[in-house]
Amino acid sequence: MQLDPTWEIGGNPHGGYLLRHLAASALDEEHPDPLAVSAHFLSPPKSGPVVVQATRLRTGRRVATTATQLSSTTGVHVAALVTASRVGDSDEPARFSRPPLEGLPAPEDCPRAPSEAPTNDFRVGHLDHVDVRWDPACLGWVMGKPSGQAEFRGWIRRDDQRDADLLDLLVFADSMAPTTYDVGIAGWAPTLELSVLLRARPAPGWLQIRQRTTLIAGGWLDEDCDIWDSTGRLVAQARQLAGYREA
Amino acid sequence: MQLDPTWEIGGNPHGGYLLRHLAASALDEEHPDPLAVSAHFLSPPKSGPVVVQATRLRTGRRVATTATQLSSTTGVHVAALVTASRVGDSDEPARFSRPPLEGLPAPEDCPRAPSEAPTNDFRVGHLDHVDVRWDPACLGWVMGKPSGQAEFRGWIRRDDQRDADLLDLLVFADSMAPTTYDVGIAGWAPTLELSVLLRARPAPGWLQIRQRTTLIAGGWLDEDCDIWDSTGRLVAQARQLAGYREA
Repeated sequence: MQLDPTWEIGGNPHGGYLLRHLAASALDEEHPDPLAVSAHFLSPPKSGPVVVQATRLRTGRRVATTATQLSSTTGVHVAALVTASRVGDSDEPARFSRPPLEGLPAPEDCPRAPSEAPTNDFRVGHLDHVDVRWDPACLGWVMGKPSGQAEFRGWIRRDDQRDADLLDLLVFADSMAPTTYDVGIAGWAPTLELSVLLRARPAPGWLQIRQRTTLIAGGWLDEDCDIWDSTGRLVAQARQLAGYREA
Repeated sequence: MQLDPTWEIGGNPHGGYLLRHLAASALDEEHPDPLAVSAHFLSPPKSGPVVVQATRLRTGRRVATTATQLSSTTGVHVAALVTASRVGDSDEPARFSRPPLEGLPAPEDCPRAPSEAPTNDFRVGHLDHVDVRWDPACLGWVMGKPSGQAEFRGWIRRDDQRDADLLDLLVFADSMAPTTYDVGIAGWAPTLELSVLLRARPAPGWLQIRQRTTLIAGGWLDEDCDIWDSTGRLVAQARQLAGYREA
């Protein structure tokens, strides 16, 4: 397959975009949905031709697990384990649930994240494909006033306004800016590991998204990204370990 | 290698015990510590002879990533991606950190979880190897009065009282009871996927542990397990997707 250069961030393909292709390669008719996806990012591929390889490890009645890799002539770039299943709709009753996000201003009152910002020296390509709206309360860092909270909240949907499916959630789960920006650390934060649990097929409409960090230390930070659909149901839980450098 | 039957839970080996062996197979002199470990559990192996296979995917200066599998004559039981590195000590300064657990009673005021309880019809073998002390406030379910909070807190250390290393944290991260017990759902909750981030080499002494769930629905629950060392530093962040059945 070909990696599309419009998904590049500063010259490297967006991680969620790669993950989407790996997860898709693991699905079949009996197990049509990603349920749990765990990826390790080894080195960024170049846009252009790559090979996605899927090795089925076990096919069960309810779930099937596949080892996947995205490679090019220079080696393996991403490896992911994918367990596929049938994921339920978001209106199925929950046995237990914590409350969703509260107090987010309406999408029309939240500015859209641009793919090219005056303060950036590089293009953030996925923001042309994904419409991310920021809670203005989380935008202090843009004006040089990071909140120190390491938490970003907002809304998310596809740029073409089609309703998101489960594979889109893999893209969304890696679409907020690094929370390091919110504590005054500049520079991109490349993903080392990203695991996503898909909890329900999202209902139509805007999704709410929150990315927050617990610890930034020793060159690594965690980022928990939770996504709720328009009914308030948690549809995806992602966690990544990313690298950062102090300027 | 041989799987030790004293680690069995109701006849199946403990997931953290298996993960420890997979992670250990991915380490080398330049990358002696697990940093991020992502496992998918396909089917439980039997105790006795198994084969652990490690395929190095990329060796970098700072990190090395390995695909590992635990198999027997009946197939692959667990597959894990392991990124190894050098993990820092817990007294290295953090750039950002959320507060640790607060209000936990002292370990001597928290009852130890037994490997054989009168209410269980099976043996929970890892509790002979791991000393888990429960905050009494989280024990209502034992008396038939689950709190409905889906959160368990307590202390943890090795049963032999040796100080925990990073591989021990992989075992600890899968050592609390299923949080389904706290909302009145009986039965074991087998792990489907488990990802662990190792954030610092723990300081000597008791570790604090908290396991909490965000959503129980459609036969699946998430369990976030955070572990802090005696200095209050977050040393491990684990998340698993597990299955449950309503009785």
